[in-house]
Amino acid sequence: MEITNEQMQEWLNCGDSKEYFELLKFVTVGAEASRLRDCVQCATWLKKWLREIGAEAELISPAGKAASHPVPVLFAEIKGEEGSPTVLFYGHYDVQPADPVDKWETPPFEPSFRDGRVYCRGAQDDKGQFFAFLCGVREYLKSGKKNVNLKILLEGQEESGSTGLFSLLEESSFRRRLASDVLLVCDTSAAADLRPAIVAGIRGVNHFTVKLTAASRDLHSGEYGGVAPNAAQGMCELLSSLHAPDGSIAVEGFLDGVEEPSAEEMEKSSAAFETEEDARKAVEKDIGAPPSGGERIKTIARRLGFEPTVEINGVHSGYGGPGSKTVIPCEAIAKISTRLVPGQNPRRTFDALKEHFQKHCPEGMEVSFPEDSGLSSAMKLPVSSPIFAVAEEALTEMDSRGPIYQWSGASIPVVSALKETSGAAALLVGWGQPCDCIHSPNESFSVRQFLLAKEWAKRILEKLQY
Amino acid sequence: MEITNEQMQEWLNCGDSKEYFELLKFVTVGAEASRLRDCVQCATWLKKWLREIGAEAELISPAGKAASHPVPVLFAEIKGEEGSPTVLFYGHYDVQPADPVDKWETPPFEPSFRDGRVYCRGAQDDKGQFFAFLCGVREYLKSGKKNVNLKILLEGQEESGSTGLFSLLEESSFRRRLASDVLLVCDTSAAADLRPAIVAGIRGVNHFTVKLTAASRDLHSGEYGGVAPNAAQGMCELLSSLHAPDGSIAVEGFLDGVEEPSAEEMEKSSAAFETEEDARKAVEKDIGAPPSGGERIKTIARRLGFEPTVEINGVHSGYGGPGSKTVIPCEAIAKISTRLVPGQNPRRTFDALKEHFQKHCPEGMEVSFPEDSGLSSAMKLPVSSPIFAVAEEALTEMDSRGPIYQWSGASIPVVSALKETSGAAALLVGWGQPCDCIHSPNESFSVRQFLLAKEWAKRILEKLQY
Repeated sequence: MEITNEQMQEWLNCGDSKEYFELLKFVTVGAEASRLRDCVQCATWLKKWLREIGAEAELISPAGKAASHPVPVLFAEIKGEEGSPTVLFYGHYDVQPADPVDKWETPPFEPSFRDGRVYCRGAQDDKGQFFAFLCGVREYLKSGKKNVNLKILLEGQEESGSTGLFSLLEESSFRRRLASDVLLVCDTSAAADLRPAIVAGIRGVNHFTVKLTAASRDLHSGEYGGVAPNAAQGMCELLSSLHAPDGSIAVEGFLDGVEEPSAEEMEKSSAAFETEEDARKAVEKDIGAPPSGGERIKTIARRLGFEPTVEINGVHSGYGGPGSKTVIPCEAIAKISTRLVPGQNPRRTFDALKEHFQKHCPEGMEVSFPEDSGLSSAMKLPVSSPIFAVAEEALTEMDSRGPIYQWSGASIPVVSALKETSGAAALLVGWGQPCDCIHSPNESFSVRQFLLAKEWAKRILEKLQY
Repeated sequence: MEITNEQMQEWLNCGDSKEYFELLKFVTVGAEASRLRDCVQCATWLKKWLREIGAEAELISPAGKAASHPVPVLFAEIKGEEGSPTVLFYGHYDVQPADPVDKWETPPFEPSFRDGRVYCRGAQDDKGQFFAFLCGVREYLKSGKKNVNLKILLEGQEESGSTGLFSLLEESSFRRRLASDVLLVCDTSAAADLRPAIVAGIRGVNHFTVKLTAASRDLHSGEYGGVAPNAAQGMCELLSSLHAPDGSIAVEGFLDGVEEPSAEEMEKSSAAFETEEDARKAVEKDIGAPPSGGERIKTIARRLGFEPTVEINGVHSGYGGPGSKTVIPCEAIAKISTRLVPGQNPRRTFDALKEHFQKHCPEGMEVSFPEDSGLSSAMKLPVSSPIFAVAEEALTEMDSRGPIYQWSGASIPVVSALKETSGAAALLVGWGQPCDCIHSPNESFSVRQFLLAKEWAKRILEKLQY
């Protein structure tokens, strides 16, 4: 499906794009307490939008531990004919923080249209993907079809551990409302050149902050250099100890239970590239550096889909401004996230890491874990699932190449929980591409991708019949 | 010398303290381009002050490489009787940046008086020390004495490599003006409980910034985790490679030429403490952590005065805000400073470090050195110097315990250059104490220290006769 200039213009003039731009302007950084108001405004805007297409919609504020930062969850329902199958659609309206802000070519929360793409934080992940899908839902409803009962769940903390939604999932009354037959998610990527892809597995995730403290204050590096413990150096040593020189994870107990991928999974996951060298080149072209991360002896497909990771998302200590400041930093923090694969117990992996940090803590320093959010297991779906057959049919109608299967390295922490709670068969099909730069400056989504996601919504809903 | 409440009140009401507070309010962070105007205003204020006490004073803007950030150097002269010895007094009106600003109990550039101490960035280093000394000069002049010719040199980039002054030192006309017999500096510390101390050696210093780049953008840690190179992790590995597990420096060539301290130096430098355990306890009490930095097999006195260091002053990469952001950072920077001892060639040590970073640069990444400032050698003064005998006499009059000798770990990069240029005998006596927290939040200077520095100025000037 290529886009003509005419289609582009038509899209720019239609309600979909105008509303999409409105949606993008909400600064819904769900992780930041100061952005709660923006999140509430965005959720309210979405509730109104859903009511206008005929849904019963309400905002639910989480209670319990999550009540201190009550980013609302939006739940909506549109009934189909009696006896129709029930579809639960999940998406998230929160986005990653925009920093480094100075690397954006246009302001991160002002949608900017250039060369067929919309640039904005959240243009793709997940505002663009879920909203395009909902525009498809609107058209499906307009056509008068009623072959499914639709439930729509939109949360605002996916990027920071889904705290509010997880706390709602503890309430049995809420859990009952989620009962459904199919769980649809539009928050993943297509294969190269937008060939459709069905996700057959996603990694679990865990995020936390490590803090290292040394002296009682920053010290002068001349006066105390040679005797004072240096927290920046200590943190570097600690973080270096997480991996062995071959790139493998060197944390005792972290890998306990890791399941090897099956031969079928290895084969299907490698299908995108003829040879390992092709995969290597494709990654290098995409990221601008050789694929030198992870355990280098293993194939790229395996490292991306079936291997756990321990990643340093940030490290900060001492001075970082212009010129110099000759201090010995007294504290350091690091942001860590791990990706988990089937067989790993998320709690056990976190405990193993905490034990590792304590054990390797440099002399004279103290390690602590001031923040952690969410622990989610990996999820693996059986390739033989009947819902996959329906999806294959719809996707082959849209693209004659047909879909490929993916074991995605990314995580949607709440999806395995939703799958269990709802009792549904999960179907994850999304339209992301590496060039969208999600989580990075200048995130974008193309009109072509938007229209594919919209088309996918219409087709899969029409096909879901008993 | 103890301070009575009466003396405290008298000081608070006198011109010295009022002018000192005015001086402290200038935000003279010489390293920051945005603070150039504040530096010029401060230098202009000082010029006026010096003219009022009878000096010929002028501001000199550096040319050449330093002209892009022309923090002025102040040079002043007060002639004594024909044939008097010439004293060159050196100080610096620039200060360290104030961050972390949130750790200050009162705003960093608003002097606040509490319990006999003045809290402000620069309260001690070096505004407090040099200004107290100049207040002593004013009293010396008021008494009508003329036994010395005085030259006063105040610069505004000591904390960032003395770029401007070093460029002026390349001009022979400027060098000639510095010719003198004695170089006086008041920018060092006294011993415990303010026992006077004469500095017999100072370490050299070098600062620079290391930058590591990996992918062409920050990447999503789910999508690329396991294949993408991580600049934060790479930087941690690089920085960890600088030291061996025993705390010694592991950079090939960096230690070339290091001179061992003499038996006399080791003895005099250890004089402050009875036993090594006492020294250990004193440091721990002072810094709030055990003295676990440096090569732990060596004594504390040796590590502080006679050993070089490679110190990480800061490391920054990726996300550091609240919650989490699951990126794989594409770049990392570190601020490094080294302290050098006699025998080391500063240029050679820097080259050795750069070679080390290149050699250990992780696969798929690139290392660069975007910033460096100043290279200064260590300086050692002969303990038998005649000027030390004069100083001992003056200091013993002020404090019956008499002075101790120090090999200071801190550096005053430009002092060795000034010593060579002026041809003078250097005499470094200062009144700092660990509790002053220089370079840290809540820097302070006590009235007692101020009055000691002032008294020292009067006494040493009076004693300097042929």
